[in-house]
Amino acid sequence: MISSNPQIEQYLTNNQNSARLLVSCPDQPGIVSTISTLLFEHGANIVESSQYTTDPSEGTFFLRIVFEADDLRNKEEAIRGSFEKVADQFSMKWTLSFLYQLKKTAIFASKDISCLRELLYQWESGDLLTDIALVISNHETGREIVESFGIPFYYIPANKDIRDEVETKQLDLLQEYDIDLIVLARYMQILTPNFVEAYPAQIINIHHSFLPAFIGASPHKRAYDRGVKLIGATSHYVTNDLDEGPIIEQDVIRVDHRNSVKDLKKKGRLIERSVLARGVKWHLEDRLIVHENKTIVFA
Amino acid sequence: MISSNPQIEQYLTNNQNSARLLVSCPDQPGIVSTISTLLFEHGANIVESSQYTTDPSEGTFFLRIVFEADDLRNKEEAIRGSFEKVADQFSMKWTLSFLYQLKKTAIFASKDISCLRELLYQWESGDLLTDIALVISNHETGREIVESFGIPFYYIPANKDIRDEVETKQLDLLQEYDIDLIVLARYMQILTPNFVEAYPAQIINIHHSFLPAFIGASPHKRAYDRGVKLIGATSHYVTNDLDEGPIIEQDVIRVDHRNSVKDLKKKGRLIERSVLARGVKWHLEDRLIVHENKTIVFA
Amino acid sequence: MISSNPQIEQYLTNNQNSARLLVSCPDQPGIVSTISTLLFEHGANIVESSQYTTDPSEGTFFLRIVFEADDLRNKEEAIRGSFEKVADQFSMKWTLSFLYQLKKTAIFASKDISCLRELLYQWESGDLLTDIALVISNHETGREIVESFGIPFYYIPANKDIRDEVETKQLDLLQEYDIDLIVLARYMQILTPNFVEAYPAQIINIHHSFLPAFIGASPHKRAYDRGVKLIGATSHYVTNDLDEGPIIEQDVIRVDHRNSVKDLKKKGRLIERSVLARGVKWHLEDRLIVHENKTIVFA
Amino acid sequence: MISSNPQIEQYLTNNQNSARLLVSCPDQPGIVSTISTLLFEHGANIVESSQYTTDPSEGTFFLRIVFEADDLRNKEEAIRGSFEKVADQFSMKWTLSFLYQLKKTAIFASKDISCLRELLYQWESGDLLTDIALVISNHETGREIVESFGIPFYYIPANKDIRDEVETKQLDLLQEYDIDLIVLARYMQILTPNFVEAYPAQIINIHHSFLPAFIGASPHKRAYDRGVKLIGATSHYVTNDLDEGPIIEQDVIRVDHRNSVKDLKKKGRLIERSVLARGVKWHLEDRLIVHENKTIVFA
Repeated sequence: MISSNPQIEQYLTNNQNSARLLVSCPDQPGIVSTISTLLFEHGANIVESSQYTTDPSEGTFFLRIVFEADDLRNKEEAIRGSFEKVADQFSMKWTLSFLYQLKKTAIFASKDISCLRELLYQWESGDLLTDIALVISNHETGREIVESFGIPFYYIPANKDIRDEVETKQLDLLQEYDIDLIVLARYMQILTPNFVEAYPAQIINIHHSFLPAFIGASPHKRAYDRGVKLIGATSHYVTNDLDEGPIIEQDVIRVDHRNSVKDLKKKGRLIERSVLARGVKWHLEDRLIVHENKTIVFA
Repeated sequence: MISSNPQIEQYLTNNQNSARLLVSCPDQPGIVSTISTLLFEHGANIVESSQYTTDPSEGTFFLRIVFEADDLRNKEEAIRGSFEKVADQFSMKWTLSFLYQLKKTAIFASKDISCLRELLYQWESGDLLTDIALVISNHETGREIVESFGIPFYYIPANKDIRDEVETKQLDLLQEYDIDLIVLARYMQILTPNFVEAYPAQIINIHHSFLPAFIGASPHKRAYDRGVKLIGATSHYVTNDLDEGPIIEQDVIRVDHRNSVKDLKKKGRLIERSVLARGVKWHLEDRLIVHENKTIVFA
Repeated sequence: MISSNPQIEQYLTNNQNSARLLVSCPDQPGIVSTISTLLFEHGANIVESSQYTTDPSEGTFFLRIVFEADDLRNKEEAIRGSFEKVADQFSMKWTLSFLYQLKKTAIFASKDISCLRELLYQWESGDLLTDIALVISNHETGREIVESFGIPFYYIPANKDIRDEVETKQLDLLQEYDIDLIVLARYMQILTPNFVEAYPAQIINIHHSFLPAFIGASPHKRAYDRGVKLIGATSHYVTNDLDEGPIIEQDVIRVDHRNSVKDLKKKGRLIERSVLARGVKWHLEDRLIVHENKTIVFA
Repeated sequence: MISSNPQIEQYLTNNQNSARLLVSCPDQPGIVSTISTLLFEHGANIVESSQYTTDPSEGTFFLRIVFEADDLRNKEEAIRGSFEKVADQFSMKWTLSFLYQLKKTAIFASKDISCLRELLYQWESGDLLTDIALVISNHETGREIVESFGIPFYYIPANKDIRDEVETKQLDLLQEYDIDLIVLARYMQILTPNFVEAYPAQIINIHHSFLPAFIGASPHKRAYDRGVKLIGATSHYVTNDLDEGPIIEQDVIRVDHRNSVKDLKKKGRLIERSVLARGVKWHLEDRLIVHENKTIVFA
């Protein structure tokens, strides 16, 4: 059951007959021709498409297509079947999203709910078109606001000593709710390789960024000591290299000599919440392909 | 003869086998399929493509494709021939640019050469990949810098009383140099409909923009009196509606209460030169299609 | 009674001995010297100060000072007394804010609560240091979230036929709560001159801005038709010239040819909420002086 | 002799009676009062002032004042004399710049003249109000453009084997031209401690910045491999810690997956030239104070 949201209901009504295709494969002549002919034969019309090739000889081919067809829902199975053959032929990795089915998102939060709040806000405003199926947190802070939207809130205390036990509970919930995307909204706990591998390119995290970088403890304090004039945020997919997964989006905000360490953290939060929301939005709109630890962003 | 520029020579060497296609036409099923099959049959590989449709039922279809093929130069005639047939079939407006041929650009300048200087700078740096074939100005200010790059400089005094005579001279030069694009780099003279119609969607202008707008005389003074906190610039194609042609690019810069009218003009120039240069760059890279007094920007 | 907010409680504790002075007056020699000597004599230390003069001969002088003194609360009366004399002498307009007293803010909202939500969020995060004393709305939409923060919510239906009656109720509430600042968070109702004059330079509004401006009905539709590449927002003090009061802050966000009228409205909301919040923040921090329908912003 | 520049001549004419004061010292009560009284007694009027204190108890006090007085030139000696006494009393570091005397700037350039060109452009436009007394380069690339402005150009080949010899020549020239500010416009050579100590807080450098930082060789290549979405630039004062001197200004520009390493370098240059120019402008306008390896920027 989806939490009630009039913006999303209207979107679903308007997009019954729309779908999005993401493809990556070794480049070779004829891919676009084959795919567009296939869609044509199913009576589908391409509304928007973007394609990019790293290198025309021996490079990798990336494609995003938005298409529409009358009575699309009844054609889903047939279209999927046709694509499977083509995908085989060209060694494609691909995802095909029919817009009548919302992606199901789980948000992981902790004590500081600034990012959680922004995601809920943008979801309510119709900017994040997804079913926020549940929120899992190791603090109770967010319960009231989450439940006010009719979204289930699960409090699961977490720390490194009980990591495996905690992740088992979390994974059970993710499976129960059939989750497509996990957003770490300043969750602050490290995930085990076991967890990360269960959701490849499906976990988005946000962290602060600085020029120069301050790796290790107290980065805001060290950025303050260094007298930086910009602080930033990076949203990225989670891999087993901590904070080193494929970058999705980055942005910065100005600071000056009058800003204390606390001010830097406050300004950091302002930019973190918008950078995270943009990353999540692009994932939900099927604009992202991961390739060799980098993202292709069909913005 | 092209003014010597090592950046451009290297670009030409690297892109002998590349071309770009821009298409707009009434949308209907099968366009992408037809074009991609055509390119495939000529042995061409699509490196990058973007497509957009205003509305899948009775909307307009827009496409930009970059493609490569071995020995492309010798295939140009055959590819153009094939496209003509397809274009007819789908009622397309289209341009096909082979990258071994640089677009030829004329810059129109006047006394304030800030925009002219930026265009020359970005051309020298290899950011604007074009043959700047000539500069026409109604002031001598820019002669020294223009000629230092080996670019011909034509001084043609201009004012509204001798407009027809001036434009005749200008049009003769544009024809002599076989010009594809005219950039009004703060040229400050109004062009007649006769002139504008000779170069549809081929003349780019820059003007200042304000929120709110200040139409008429002394806009900087009125923006100052109004206490605006941002001033902007707009680059656009020139049509016969003064300053009302299709917008290509816009940007803004912050001002504050300490800035005088003169400061607003100075800051305005900083933003005007970058907004003009981006507009010109996109045109040269075949990223712009004009449709119903708006631009599609394949950024 | 102030709604409980740990961020604000901490701020109050830390700033018991701080105050801010804002001054404007005809410029003449000796003003800074007189004021700084006065503060010195009261044992106060200037922590931060900014001064600006429009024109040293016959111009206007503007000053913002943040100062601290031990046991400041007990010196308030004496300091105010000294200032009154100096203010008289130099024909000053001035405000003196002791930070142990929060400004009391009323938010006026309507059906779209995006701006209201942002203000609440920034208040909770400690970015807006004020007592949000009440919210008045002509829709019930915001009640749940407002009351969840322990802030009183007053539903007062409004339309132009009952304007006087509505404003009487509103003015009664504003007086009852001893309000210093009114924020129109997309309130959408016009205020009468009677109302506006009761709160000079104390009412902040937000509205959309475009380059060029589209005055009158359906500006988003007309901006869409014009193909603008930026849409903006302006926060300003309310005067009796509709949307023409002194501009406090402006900002813009990019849009492109793929954005529908609805998208423009959504993106507009994103920028409106941050531009309004910055304007409110600066007012609360005593950074704004109104002069001849413009603002001096001590940023 | 100053290279002819009408913008600067007009500036000098308009500012014969203006001066700027920069002060830093241990904070204590009475500083502002003492200075403003001193200026008042010399008949000077404060046009603009900004003050900031790191911490009112045992912190450091920073002040920038712009003042005017009739016949200021003839009062210079007397005002300097008065300040010396006050400076002694409060243990101040201070600079007092009378605007009729332009700061003398030397630009150090190398093969890539993008930053040099920007500085010359902004100087000609009246944005950088200084006497560009000479340009020193270890390549001939910039000679033509520099000399076209009537500025002396010195070609001094440089590499690490002849560093001392080269710096001796450079220091002789800097002394001969009585240089106040040295701008390293992508000079690419390391300066010895001997050189750096001769010009404390008087040498400004520009370098690229990344999030995360890529320290060591080929940073653009590594930023590309990491898939960053922003690249930046930092202008800073030069100290003996390579690239670790006090940061003056930073900014970023967007890049995407389609950008090659070469594109990153090109975009990097666009942002480097504006970040360097802003840093230089602020220095020339006496807006910068260095304190504990950080800058106070009175923007």
